[in-house]
Amino acid sequence: MELYDLVIIGGGPGGIASAIYAIRARMKVLMIEKAGIGGQIAVSDIIENYPGFPSVSGPELMQAFEDHAKGIGLEIKYATVKKIQKTDSLFAIEIGEGSLKSKSIIMATGAEPARIGIPGETEFIGRGVSTCATCDGPFYRDKEIAVVGGGDTAVKESIYLSKLVKKIYHIHRRGSFRAEKVLQERVFEKDNIEFLWFHSPLEIKGDQSGVTQLVVENSKDGSQKTIDLLGVFMFVGIVPSTSFVDCEKDDSGFIKTDEKMESSVKGLFAIGDCRVTPLRQVATAVGDGAIAATKAEEYVSELEGTSYEGKQKN
Amino acid sequence: MELYDLVIIGGGPGGIASAIYAIRARMKVLMIEKAGIGGQIAVSDIIENYPGFPSVSGPELMQAFEDHAKGIGLEIKYATVKKIQKTDSLFAIEIGEGSLKSKSIIMATGAEPARIGIPGETEFIGRGVSTCATCDGPFYRDKEIAVVGGGDTAVKESIYLSKLVKKIYHIHRRGSFRAEKVLQERVFEKDNIEFLWFHSPLEIKGDQSGVTQLVVENSKDGSQKTIDLLGVFMFVGIVPSTSFVDCEKDDSGFIKTDEKMESSVKGLFAIGDCRVTPLRQVATAVGDGAIAATKAEEYVSELEGTSYEGKQKN
Repeated sequence: MELYDLVIIGGGPGGIASAIYAIRARMKVLMIEKAGIGGQIAVSDIIENYPGFPSVSGPELMQAFEDHAKGIGLEIKYATVKKIQKTDSLFAIEIGEGSLKSKSIIMATGAEPARIGIPGETEFIGRGVSTCATCDGPFYRDKEIAVVGGGDTAVKESIYLSKLVKKIYHIHRRGSFRAEKVLQERVFEKDNIEFLWFHSPLEIKGDQSGVTQLVVENSKDGSQKTIDLLGVFMFVGIVPSTSFVDCEKDDSGFIKTDEKMESSVKGLFAIGDCRVTPLRQVATAVGDGAIAATKAEEYVSELEGTSYEGKQKN
Repeated sequence: MELYDLVIIGGGPGGIASAIYAIRARMKVLMIEKAGIGGQIAVSDIIENYPGFPSVSGPELMQAFEDHAKGIGLEIKYATVKKIQKTDSLFAIEIGEGSLKSKSIIMATGAEPARIGIPGETEFIGRGVSTCATCDGPFYRDKEIAVVGGGDTAVKESIYLSKLVKKIYHIHRRGSFRAEKVLQERVFEKDNIEFLWFHSPLEIKGDQSGVTQLVVENSKDGSQKTIDLLGVFMFVGIVPSTSFVDCEKDDSGFIKTDEKMESSVKGLFAIGDCRVTPLRQVATAVGDGAIAATKAEEYVSELEGTSYEGKQKN
């Protein structure tokens, strides 16, 4: 069975950054990615806050990251991780088609869009309910839709969708957005968005053709309203993909780390969106990745009791 | 007197990243830089580990950062900060030509090359003693020089200088380098570098023309050796530029922060090389900058008791 120094699980910005550092540290590295390189960012319309790239699409930025890592020899395996277990000092990583062993792990699994848990939400996924504006937006050209949520993603996607659709009902349970102010300014300039403050979705209704109506409730007076529309875009937070590993997590499943990005399990690191962190951005994932790879290399070197001295000239 | 929401002190990668985030958060931001944009990185030969830029010179990368920030309206003042003091809830920043006020501060002042403190070291600065290979290397074409130190910078600069000079004595007080392994491999491939392990510089000798000799001591047997050479490049660590501000620091002067990058003084943040951090890289400075700007914006909003609600359409 193949033994790696480091297995990185997840190919988003943080995973790729850690791969670049680990490869340069001459570790034997494997990245395991379940779908496509880039993670959530690869479905993002425009990124304007990763320093050095003033304005770039998500796929373009992630292509630049992938090219960087592949150019120095990154090996990627496309598979879904079922379970990680540490026995003695090695980690066993179960994937569909067998298992792998590694001396250290970096969890860079990111997080997936959360669901609210209302009737119709799961039933109409892919038939009117969406969590990806760039993926599904073009299907709603000149139609009426709803956007739900108040963070960066919700507001960004509302701006993006407003260019495509006829009208957006932007539904938020609070009285203001917590998104970046530049995004708020942009969304408030749009003429085809109606903001429903202090409103929450209650039920998504539809028929054979897909979604036809959204029922919302006003939390101020308890009144309900039914809106005719064809799409509901939900951006109500994220859920980390960490269920297959045992270590200390917060109540939502985000992995707790120290400043070295190490979890409660020695040799198991976590970076980016899947860890407890004050900010979830490409810039922060990249910083996390650099730290985790450097600390994983130190961990593996200590584990082996090796130093580089033997390879030196003198 | 001009009042800012945020003053960023230092124009390296971390400072620029925080500026990008703060400007996008619609803060009134000023960057104060004492010399040139880019910090220590601007004198670095090649950067290969900032994701998205497979191989780029320090000045090129910092130009891309500067263009990004200036493109969205970054205001830069070239001045040296003498003192920062917090009175009530505002910071007063004394600069040579007067003073400024700000609601929050990000210290992005970086760190400068350390000195060992041996005879001749200060005397011959600029006349044979250097801390910048890209600045001074070309003056030593086909000459013999010494490089002192064992970290990333020392090894990188040794590789760079080996292409220019006739011979390098690479002096390190330990028996192995702690630099990235890819850098170690490259330096060991060079034919014109002689490694003096377990050696420390004792004295730099010279005359009117500049440096002529370096005296080193072998820590294993106490023996001394005098080397004829014309240049001594010192890469023996860094000292943070934090003396003008009062907050909790470690024994070396690096600012202690929490995971929000906030120091022991509320509203005073520190990022990158000048803070206590597990790694000092462009990637980590950028992550720090994104977090500090976001948290500074939250701090200033709370200070003002303002929310964005008043500006909203509905």
